[in-house]
Amino acid sequence: MNSYTSFILKCTTAVFVFMIFSCKEESKSISDNNSETTAQEQAHPKLILTAQGVKDIRAQLGSIPIFDNSLEKIKAEIDAEIEAGIEVPIPKDYSGGYTHSRHKRNWFAMQKAGVLYQILDDEKYAKYVKNMLMEYEAMYKTLPLHPKTRSYARGKIFWQCLNDSNWLVYVSQAYDCIYNYLTEEERNKLETNLFRPFADHISVDSPQFYQRVHNHSTWGNAAVGMIGLVMNDEVLINRALYGIKDLKLDANKKDDDGGFLNKDGKAGFLANIEEPFSPDGYYNEGPYYQRYAMYPFLVFAEGLYNVKPELKIFEYKEGVLLKSINALLNLSDADGDFFPLNDGQKGMSYYNGALVTAVDVSYHYGNQDPGLLSIAQQQDQVLLDDSGLAVALGIKEGKTKPFDKKSINLSDGPNGTQGGVGILRNKNLELVFKYAAQGSSHGHYDKLSYSLYENGEEVIQDYGLARFVNIEQKGGGNYLKENKTWAKQTIAHNTVTQNETSHFKAKYEIGSQHHSVLNYYSFENETIQVASAKETNAYPGTEMLRTMAVIKDEDFEKPYLLDIMKVTSATANQYDFPFYYFGQVLQTNFEYNSPETLKPLGNKNGYQHLYIEATAKANNDNSKFSWLNTNKFYTLTTVTSNKDELLFTRIGANDPQFNLRKDPALILRRKNAKNTVFVSVIEAHGSYSPVTESAVNSKSNIAALKVVLDTVDYTAIEITNIKGDTKLFITANTNASKEAKHDLTINNKNYEWSGSYYFK
Amino acid sequence: MNSYTSFILKCTTAVFVFMIFSCKEESKSISDNNSETTAQEQAHPKLILTAQGVKDIRAQLGSIPIFDNSLEKIKAEIDAEIEAGIEVPIPKDYSGGYTHSRHKRNWFAMQKAGVLYQILDDEKYAKYVKNMLMEYEAMYKTLPLHPKTRSYARGKIFWQCLNDSNWLVYVSQAYDCIYNYLTEEERNKLETNLFRPFADHISVDSPQFYQRVHNHSTWGNAAVGMIGLVMNDEVLINRALYGIKDLKLDANKKDDDGGFLNKDGKAGFLANIEEPFSPDGYYNEGPYYQRYAMYPFLVFAEGLYNVKPELKIFEYKEGVLLKSINALLNLSDADGDFFPLNDGQKGMSYYNGALVTAVDVSYHYGNQDPGLLSIAQQQDQVLLDDSGLAVALGIKEGKTKPFDKKSINLSDGPNGTQGGVGILRNKNLELVFKYAAQGSSHGHYDKLSYSLYENGEEVIQDYGLARFVNIEQKGGGNYLKENKTWAKQTIAHNTVTQNETSHFKAKYEIGSQHHSVLNYYSFENETIQVASAKETNAYPGTEMLRTMAVIKDEDFEKPYLLDIMKVTSATANQYDFPFYYFGQVLQTNFEYNSPETLKPLGNKNGYQHLYIEATAKANNDNSKFSWLNTNKFYTLTTVTSNKDELLFTRIGANDPQFNLRKDPALILRRKNAKNTVFVSVIEAHGSYSPVTESAVNSKSNIAALKVVLDTVDYTAIEITNIKGDTKLFITANTNASKEAKHDLTINNKNYEWSGSYYFK
Repeated sequence: MNSYTSFILKCTTAVFVFMIFSCKEESKSISDNNSETTAQEQAHPKLILTAQGVKDIRAQLGSIPIFDNSLEKIKAEIDAEIEAGIEVPIPKDYSGGYTHSRHKRNWFAMQKAGVLYQILDDEKYAKYVKNMLMEYEAMYKTLPLHPKTRSYARGKIFWQCLNDSNWLVYVSQAYDCIYNYLTEEERNKLETNLFRPFADHISVDSPQFYQRVHNHSTWGNAAVGMIGLVMNDEVLINRALYGIKDLKLDANKKDDDGGFLNKDGKAGFLANIEEPFSPDGYYNEGPYYQRYAMYPFLVFAEGLYNVKPELKIFEYKEGVLLKSINALLNLSDADGDFFPLNDGQKGMSYYNGALVTAVDVSYHYGNQDPGLLSIAQQQDQVLLDDSGLAVALGIKEGKTKPFDKKSINLSDGPNGTQGGVGILRNKNLELVFKYAAQGSSHGHYDKLSYSLYENGEEVIQDYGLARFVNIEQKGGGNYLKENKTWAKQTIAHNTVTQNETSHFKAKYEIGSQHHSVLNYYSFENETIQVASAKETNAYPGTEMLRTMAVIKDEDFEKPYLLDIMKVTSATANQYDFPFYYFGQVLQTNFEYNSPETLKPLGNKNGYQHLYIEATAKANNDNSKFSWLNTNKFYTLTTVTSNKDELLFTRIGANDPQFNLRKDPALILRRKNAKNTVFVSVIEAHGSYSPVTESAVNSKSNIAALKVVLDTVDYTAIEITNIKGDTKLFITANTNASKEAKHDLTINNKNYEWSGSYYFK
Repeated sequence: MNSYTSFILKCTTAVFVFMIFSCKEESKSISDNNSETTAQEQAHPKLILTAQGVKDIRAQLGSIPIFDNSLEKIKAEIDAEIEAGIEVPIPKDYSGGYTHSRHKRNWFAMQKAGVLYQILDDEKYAKYVKNMLMEYEAMYKTLPLHPKTRSYARGKIFWQCLNDSNWLVYVSQAYDCIYNYLTEEERNKLETNLFRPFADHISVDSPQFYQRVHNHSTWGNAAVGMIGLVMNDEVLINRALYGIKDLKLDANKKDDDGGFLNKDGKAGFLANIEEPFSPDGYYNEGPYYQRYAMYPFLVFAEGLYNVKPELKIFEYKEGVLLKSINALLNLSDADGDFFPLNDGQKGMSYYNGALVTAVDVSYHYGNQDPGLLSIAQQQDQVLLDDSGLAVALGIKEGKTKPFDKKSINLSDGPNGTQGGVGILRNKNLELVFKYAAQGSSHGHYDKLSYSLYENGEEVIQDYGLARFVNIEQKGGGNYLKENKTWAKQTIAHNTVTQNETSHFKAKYEIGSQHHSVLNYYSFENETIQVASAKETNAYPGTEMLRTMAVIKDEDFEKPYLLDIMKVTSATANQYDFPFYYFGQVLQTNFEYNSPETLKPLGNKNGYQHLYIEATAKANNDNSKFSWLNTNKFYTLTTVTSNKDELLFTRIGANDPQFNLRKDPALILRRKNAKNTVFVSVIEAHGSYSPVTESAVNSKSNIAALKVVLDTVDYTAIEITNIKGDTKLFITANTNASKEAKHDLTINNKNYEWSGSYYFK
């Protein structure tokens, strides 16, 4: 065994030496160099699985339960695939259709069969991969563009290059695993007729797809790079890392989603790490797309780490790839579901396969955080590679600890200076406060919006996207037009809409130039978590400063949310301020009128999709609204004047295909106001059991909510509970640093403190 | 120990001898007879816990986990109550209010403390019960009627006699447990000032409550009877069993719910067993109210079994009490939730405490069905008495088997001749087909209606009641007016509404005189479960015959529902036929138009509560509709002509307090038709995962559904799947017995079979 190890080490050295040389001679790839062939052969697998990893795995097999189980499942799956036989149909369908699904199944099957060949050393798996690859080779060399024409960048196997790239990312791994099983002739055939033209099609032949900073391109880059690493083709590797050489694209062209194709000329894998990730690891499109992009980021990074360690890819940009995994895991609720910021489909969670990769890679290539092991245990699955082995061993050795999610502030923007997202956690309550940049073409127009969760359930929801991903009956599984007319509009979110128009007029060109700005965040005191941010560009001439605090007061059963939205404007406007609650109306302290017929609230900017279910005049101090959802009680207390209106609305108007969910909202409408402040408390309280039929703590604990001061520099809110006890919260609207000293008199009483806020 | 046992046995004998004697001398109760006092004292507890049971429990403690855990929980609860101190406030509030909740808590606390005293032999529990009883005694003797006036029978501790009766049912048990702990003087004080006047108030002083066949009266009877058993008061015991002697009530008076107070003069506990239970154990109001009534039925029966074994209460009416428990358990879905027939609140389940009693009693006093042990394990709780001990021992000894729910037909009516309810189970699909009698004052006007479940989730829902039980903010937790205007109306249910009027004009006086009639049911073939029933009175001049089959065809992934509703009428009518689906519209094969504003479908009989969301002309053969709910796909295929209309509706119009859920329906409307047949198939198929984003088997497997014959005697339906294979289902509309022989020619092909239906 020892002699084998040292042989591998020697070979690896040889390869590295050659690769450095090869960088200087781009047009020549190693596989053309006969003198190196033997060493090359010995070095496979090298991309994700490594030869040493295979050795270690084989030594541990049977004694690492989570790994053994994962292997068993995959073996059963692939044995069934082999039994069923190979099928490589002529491409024909969109997502969800037969040929699409079949080719997708094939890429997974090949990747897994390759791994099984290495771990189990059973030739039948290699043969299966080889035979399938040969069928693809036979088909691909004469294959025209995919017949479906909807994509801005059509693939050949699939309707879009994106899916072709998915295929190659997986198939590269399969090829690596059976590389040595194939004869040189077979390899030449595959590389010449399948892999190189395939890589070219998704890159040089589809620059509008490849040459961008975008999750699509990340897949493209990874695909080209990974096959390049396997074939040791420096042309492809460099094209992957740095984009297509000497190519300039029209900076004004847009893709299917309305995003710019290539605004600033940046491209390639490194640019795709550089641009979308903030130094904290926040991905600008949000967690749903980060999850999607994560796999190619990490799997190509693994390959680079293994084949080109000198790149130090996991240290790139101060280790942002591993940081991004931590950020992503923190962007999930108590059940592991990702917060549906921007275009996010609800229900996507860290149970997704990409997150198995993320968790295992993060554990293995990072600092072996024992909290990650608990997520791996929930996932009940590990990768069948070196990183999965590390996780399995960690679990076996009893190192697991809970993954403890705390409040976290994640900056946005390549340099972390374009706003961010704050997750405020306090016991079972989670607040997601978005004050980020536009979020690329998948961004929504919802500056300073929020959503609120109790123990993994939505209390105040973010709508997410208007799409049924991969459900063919709904627009082929693609974005529905309501994504633009509803889901992206400001009124679909829990923030201020001014004069019934969306932020930045819902124009990507404008929105993508701006971002909100952090005022402060403070998570030190575990009973009160606060974040505050400002937006000055969404409506020119209007400033919005929102301060959100999740407070656990000893007199309250659960934490409550205090929300202060301060609006400053040079002109008189109408402000709409919605609460997208869920569930059943229980009680209000205001009278409302229900119309006999339901009419839309407006005719554009999302308003055309809201029915008015009831209207009311607000009270002259506090308006209160209680509701019941999933057997828990909630109460909103909001400061109003009797000039304010309250509207009960429901989504679903002008929705002729029933594409939208019929979810409710209460909208606070303030007309003809310049400067104003919206102050609300949302309490979670009590519970109801349909089994015992008992209602516990079903009423609000708040007697009064009052703005006692609102100046340029400070806003002070007094909260009186039903026992008559009061608490005062003062937020610094300016000069809000941790170190700032404040001295303020309110109603003849003096308050002195240092820090961003005062609460007592 | 042996000498103690024999002493008890002797005493018991003495008591029985005396009791037989005492029956002849009704006005004299045993406790007045000094010579018997010692024996009486020794006999306690005797009601639910018995002296022998206490001995057995003490012997097993610590070795019967489920019992030990139940004891531990209750001990912790009562220790905390004792710590918190006794509070017996002056009655003031409705349900959900403070004094109501406190007195309710007290009754539970006393009952549990009494049990703890017996099992743990710790005087502190007896003292706690005694002290609390003395506070009630002090208050009760001068207590006026409860100040709230809404009930037809006001209580003293609570706003209605019903809750006073609840109190006494529990407190009788507590009194029994500490009987021997009290001095004779203390007992006399309690009996004279509290228990006797209390029993009189809920019986002789409230005959409109007590003297009925109704779940309210059952509680009243049990309360009076149980305190009678403890005090050995034959007057009370007889009043409990047979009602108030020589009392006649006005047969036309009604209660708060619109039920007749006492139509036929029947009263007392035995009449309450006789009338509402069918021989199969179906309770005429449905499972939700059966669950509520169950506790007094069973706990009083236990007391009677223990104290008056000669009554053979568990054998009464061929053992209907134990049969009813089996029926009730079968009236629950895969999660144990009861089907919300009539006024049923969703979410009520066999996890309710009354069902712990039911399961334990059924096991102990019945045939020790090992399936009951698995439900007890799910409940994770047993009674702290002889029956709970039996269950705990059964579990400990490994006797547990799954409680296997199969298709079951439950007849309705005292003699089982008033229609019934069929539960058709086929793999994960459950169909609830209701062809019962009115169901007393809690009945809905929904002859031949159904609901459909997949693995415990509603596919086609029954709305249930319009009430938020014990949620004070919603009408004090009582029935909402929408219960009458919506939930009880026919259009709220999955059956035929003729000419926009409800069955029996929604009049209880008419509805309570009629019931549907079974045509046949057939559960022998496990792949096809069928039930068929007829209704001739809901609309005079119109007959409805509905045949429902849940079929597992090998070419289909899951079972499907075939529904044949044959309507025969002398006159031309409009028929509305709704499908109360849940979830998101995916696809239809017909074009529909969505109005810009939503208007109610009608102005009365429930139609005023439905908004029209879209309208369509049906297709000339099959109209198809697919939807997605909780990540599963469903498709309706229904036989239509192009004269039919299809309406997408949503509940919630004319609902000014948001009392209704905004649930959707598709309504098939057939105008100007005399005889017609509605034929539909509902397929459950496939699934969607938001984690993998893959849609599996998302499309219908049915190519065509066709009525090939429809005569007085037969209806024949041909089902063609997408592979082109056909199946034929023929149902016998007449002469449908198991033994009947049929010979029929359809399209020149001959079909011969014996039995109710043909399927091939």
